[in-house]
Amino acid sequence: MQPRSEETKSRILEAALKCFSQKGYDATGVAELCAMAGVSKGAFYHHFSSKHAVFLELLTRWLADLESKMQRTLQSEQDTPQGLVQMAGMTRQVFEDAQGYLPMFLEFWRQACKDPDVWRATIAPYHRFQGLFQRIIENGVREGSLQAADSAMISRIIVSLAVGVLLQGLLDPQGAAWDAVATEGVSRIISGLAIKKE
Amino acid sequence: MQPRSEETKSRILEAALKCFSQKGYDATGVAELCAMAGVSKGAFYHHFSSKHAVFLELLTRWLADLESKMQRTLQSEQDTPQGLVQMAGMTRQVFEDAQGYLPMFLEFWRQACKDPDVWRATIAPYHRFQGLFQRIIENGVREGSLQAADSAMISRIIVSLAVGVLLQGLLDPQGAAWDAVATEGVSRIISGLAIKKE
Repeated sequence: MQPRSEETKSRILEAALKCFSQKGYDATGVAELCAMAGVSKGAFYHHFSSKHAVFLELLTRWLADLESKMQRTLQSEQDTPQGLVQMAGMTRQVFEDAQGYLPMFLEFWRQACKDPDVWRATIAPYHRFQGLFQRIIENGVREGSLQAADSAMISRIIVSLAVGVLLQGLLDPQGAAWDAVATEGVSRIISGLAIKKE
Repeated sequence: MQPRSEETKSRILEAALKCFSQKGYDATGVAELCAMAGVSKGAFYHHFSSKHAVFLELLTRWLADLESKMQRTLQSEQDTPQGLVQMAGMTRQVFEDAQGYLPMFLEFWRQACKDPDVWRATIAPYHRFQGLFQRIIENGVREGSLQAADSAMISRIIVSLAVGVLLQGLLDPQGAAWDAVATEGVSRIISGLAIKKE
């Protein structure tokens, strides 16, 4: 993509993030996005087929950013069990980044119940993070810091905990120290597997 | 309440459950509920102030039913750790009972983002189940089957796992053996606390 074209795309995404977060997904129209981004409708539809496509792109970028932050956190720790607990400690950052996204997530889940395309896009991140945790656990077994275990199952348990913490934390931010719930939860889930160094 | 009045209320709730599950909450009108239940609008508004109130009553009854099933499961087990794992094994039943509720849950969460009354009604069950698990854990400590622990924290971890399993299981029923994820998850979460009998 040309630099200028890429800049147009970024402006649309920034405007969308602001509008969706402040006014909600439903209440935001393409005309409004164009006005805020300072682009023509033609330029908008050159980059995105619909408002829906903009949302998908925001979600994809948000997830890719989260995944690369998680990978960096993991690599900075000395072994896999500590890395997994540190990743859980990123919950606070995830909440800060996700502020305003909850109504959009819910809108998306609702559409996913009706529309197979949205359903696939909604389910994909769960499978992706499940796969990521599974590879991390298998790596821990290879490096000798985790006992051999059903890595697919353990990773589903971790992702389920994360989804539950995220949903409750977005609905009820003051209800608990949600990052502590995530950290202590992951720590307990893997405690039976960690191999202590001599 | 008079027996006949109670029967009218039950008929409205049965009709609502059927309509909400099959057509969705949004697409169902009060007139349609009345027609299906065979009651007048006057009778409807004698029992419920709105469609919203019907939904709240369905949610409340569903949760009360779930809670009493959980209590019975717990009491039939010989100690608290086994009881907690058996309760997690009820996931399959919970999914069967929740079929068709997902679009309603999502609609509710979405409204909870805007409306403080809905927000309170939406948050209440999480607090209620958190309290239930906390009492179960404290009971296990008293009976000597669990080590003393931060029972509020452990119960939040269990509720978070349950919420994550429920959401993913409703979105993606074929994606995993969700009842096994719940059972193994709870088992791992409390494994460090269980005191084995001699």
